Amino acid sequence: MTYCVATLLDTGLVFLSDSRTNAGVDHVNTFRKMHAFERSGDRVLVLMTSGNLAVSQAVVHELHECIAQANARSLFSVKSAFEAAALVGETLRAVHHRDAASLKEHGIDFNAAFILGGQIRGEAPRLFHVYAAGNFIEATEDTPYFQIGESKYGKPILDRVITRSSSIAEATKCALISMDSTIRSNLSVGLPLDLICVRRDALKVQLHRSITAEDEYFRMIRSGWGDSLRHAFHTLPNPTF
Amino acid sequence: MTYCVATLLDTGLVFLSDSRTNAGVDHVNTFRKMHAFERSGDRVLVLMTSGNLAVSQAVVHELHECIAQANARSLFSVKSAFEAAALVGETLRAVHHRDAASLKEHGIDFNAAFILGGQIRGEAPRLFHVYAAGNFIEATEDTPYFQIGESKYGKPILDRVITRSSSIAEATKCALISMDSTIRSNLSVGLPLDLICVRRDALKVQLHRSITAEDEYFRMIRSGWGDSLRHAFHTLPNPTF
Repeated sequence: MTYCVATLLDTGLVFLSDSRTNAGVDHVNTFRKMHAFERSGDRVLVLMTSGNLAVSQAVVHELHECIAQANARSLFSVKSAFEAAALVGETLRAVHHRDAASLKEHGIDFNAAFILGGQIRGEAPRLFHVYAAGNFIEATEDTPYFQIGESKYGKPILDRVITRSSSIAEATKCALISMDSTIRSNLSVGLPLDLICVRRDALKVQLHRSITAEDEYFRMIRSGWGDSLRHAFHTLPNPTF
Repeated sequence: MTYCVATLLDTGLVFLSDSRTNAGVDHVNTFRKMHAFERSGDRVLVLMTSGNLAVSQAVVHELHECIAQANARSLFSVKSAFEAAALVGETLRAVHHRDAASLKEHGIDFNAAFILGGQIRGEAPRLFHVYAAGNFIEATEDTPYFQIGESKYGKPILDRVITRSSSIAEATKCALISMDSTIRSNLSVGLPLDLICVRRDALKVQLHRSITAEDEYFRMIRSGWGDSLRHAFHTLPNPTF
């Protein structure tokens, strides 16, 4: 399984993904699920993937190939983030066209979901959720975040805390708390994490950090959040009925 | 959908269920999912149900019939909570035997999960999770709670706070917070709630409360927990990287 979360803020974007893949509990591996497409000063696009790893790797490979071969349509040539999301969707459809029948023969679902976000010069930062069918939705004023994969454990804290006006630092902290809650409750989500922060109008990756079990800040979050939650719990009065 | 949670404590048991059922978002109803079988001074057993409502109602009906007809085996005649869980499982299997083929013809899954807990004179309080196949597991020292239905949103707070030595009041507060997180993140779980508390060795329902949107304590939890979470969030330092 996988857990990825991205938030779209007035001041930029924050992306966080885990790195665990599993085909059964006895076949657990580490694969990065975050891919940055960056041409400094012109655009920065970040793609996070969930679902069947062969499918998502095929899509990412194809997106890189389009750039390497300087195709007329690539993530480096499209004029808007909307077009970029459409290109990711089309690439996914092409992989579906090629692989879905064979997967079905083997009883395997064609299963993929992507988050694509970033900024292309001339536009504001944007964030998209691309579905397995290649269609996609965009984050709006009311919905500042998207999640893919094992999203439920880590959703309540996002719902309570994140707004478009949250800072990048706050959104990073919240994403790490959301990830920690997920990791604690679900074995199929695991370290190391990939974190990317993109500041509005910087048109480059501001920060790309690999967070391992030794990361000091994440260790503080892991112990500190549990303590804070327990403290918050004990300060609320018990029922008297 | 449904969310039910029960905790087994050194001092007793706490059960909490929502009451929303839905067959599509345009067919939402209120049905109680909590059923108490009580013979004061001898036994108290509480059953919470999730899954297909026709299936769970059929099982509950049959369990009541066994008591009404003074059958040799009923929830009032079994000698242990383990036997009670086995009887619930068998009843579920009988319903499966009768209904599963017809449901399948209509493309509907046979889908049910129950939590059964309580105390029978001569035993300690016990708690069971009964699966659709009629098999079941029992809560042990290490696992003080069971959930059925839409369980993921409300799991992190249980994992952080509840132990066997928590008090009934604390477990009630935690169950309500867990329910609140679930209701906020998932439309298919809704008020009113049913709460039952059973004190160890009382051999009766100590408290049975229907919690509506007007319930003062639950309103405090709803606003207070959000505030506490946000406060806890803001007291943790932001990342400096």
